[in-house]
Amino acid sequence: MPRYALLIEYNGAPFSGWQRQKEHPSVQQAIEEALRVLEPACAGIAAAGRTDAGVHAMGQVAHCDLVKEWDPFRLSEALNFHLKPAPVAILKVARVADDWHARFSATERRYMFRIVSRRAPLVHDAGLAWHVQHDLDVDAMQAGADRLIGKHDFTTFRSTMCQADSPVKTLDVARVEAFDIPFGREFRLYFQARSFLHNQVRSFVGTLERVGSGAWVADDVTAALEARDRAACGPVCPPHGLYLTGVQYPDDTFGT
Amino acid sequence: MPRYALLIEYNGAPFSGWQRQKEHPSVQQAIEEALRVLEPACAGIAAAGRTDAGVHAMGQVAHCDLVKEWDPFRLSEALNFHLKPAPVAILKVARVADDWHARFSATERRYMFRIVSRRAPLVHDAGLAWHVQHDLDVDAMQAGADRLIGKHDFTTFRSTMCQADSPVKTLDVARVEAFDIPFGREFRLYFQARSFLHNQVRSFVGTLERVGSGAWVADDVTAALEARDRAACGPVCPPHGLYLTGVQYPDDTFGT
Repeated sequence: MPRYALLIEYNGAPFSGWQRQKEHPSVQQAIEEALRVLEPACAGIAAAGRTDAGVHAMGQVAHCDLVKEWDPFRLSEALNFHLKPAPVAILKVARVADDWHARFSATERRYMFRIVSRRAPLVHDAGLAWHVQHDLDVDAMQAGADRLIGKHDFTTFRSTMCQADSPVKTLDVARVEAFDIPFGREFRLYFQARSFLHNQVRSFVGTLERVGSGAWVADDVTAALEARDRAACGPVCPPHGLYLTGVQYPDDTFGT
Repeated sequence: MPRYALLIEYNGAPFSGWQRQKEHPSVQQAIEEALRVLEPACAGIAAAGRTDAGVHAMGQVAHCDLVKEWDPFRLSEALNFHLKPAPVAILKVARVADDWHARFSATERRYMFRIVSRRAPLVHDAGLAWHVQHDLDVDAMQAGADRLIGKHDFTTFRSTMCQADSPVKTLDVARVEAFDIPFGREFRLYFQARSFLHNQVRSFVGTLERVGSGAWVADDVTAALEARDRAACGPVCPPHGLYLTGVQYPDDTFGT
């Protein structure tokens, strides 16, 4: 059976997360139902990363095996037609090798987190960014983020529900940017690693927000990391500012 | 009674437009209800521009008269508190002179229209931009827009319901920008004038989209303008890409 890789964008708000669950709508279910309109026997899809409830994606990747030989463009068009009106879009489809795996072939995941700082409630960015009402010190946040880069035991920054075998991961990028917006500032935090632990990015962001607001300093981030203790983590930030922005594969699957 | 100017942001999706209507929710009603929690006798508000159903604002301006002397910042905070959960935010409040009028004192209105061109349905921009599936020629659109600049009889580009005394207006700015986005392009159209006719911006955008897609050329825009005939207009575009971005006053009311 030919295998297809799907590049996927979604708004996480109406979903209980990526992963199929019995009684709650999931992104996986939405896409599998669209696939089964095309091929009723479709066994299902596997994704690069199982995003939590409320987390968005601009570059989630999944794969599926289908009976027919589909033209990749026509498959993306058919899926988008059947996905309506769910806030899920197939950006691109690629034909991949039979042993290509959205999760196991991935060499890098990229996340972006948006924080909007202003007094007034969010309107156009409601549900798309974390709203804080105080300003943040971007240089302090970057100094804190620098303490997280590299290979570490990230026990402090993973959910107690995390099912990964090891808490040791290598964080390749942790970059904080800020820019002015009318009546406030927006902060974007970028993270890249081969793979992430459960709640790792939201644990990072919640901790770095504490640094940006002056409640913590960079040394507190190092101390939290070295404690290897979940209780040492800053507050986990809300999910709706988080975006899975991309997944890298050795073969540049989508030719982007 | 002291007069206050309100700088207002809203998402137009849930509203029948700015103006209060008996049986449909409006932005005006939402703000007046919040004001009447603070001052039950508040007579109501007047806005710089009555936006249509579905049209958004980043810089609508209205004014109200209140009994109390309010600190402007505290008034904005109180209004935002009582506006929840409506997608309406008071960005700033300013104390203004008794004869200052949101509509009649305005010297310029600015609108922006977002078009997103890509194959896949919109996800994060759903409801916030007009989605087209074909590419547009930005230079052709600008050439068409140039034909609209200046003082003209804009009968072609106003709704038959328009209540303005005269169809003659002066368009000061009509600028088209384009930039790449993942898997597509975004177009932003900027318009500035002292005042606009009903449906004028959406009539411009619908017409310029025809030029961008190659169905019309710039000379067709001139011919449509000179026809002074509503039937000569291109199709009126949908409202949800349109933003009232700002209103100018001689006194730089909000100190921005």
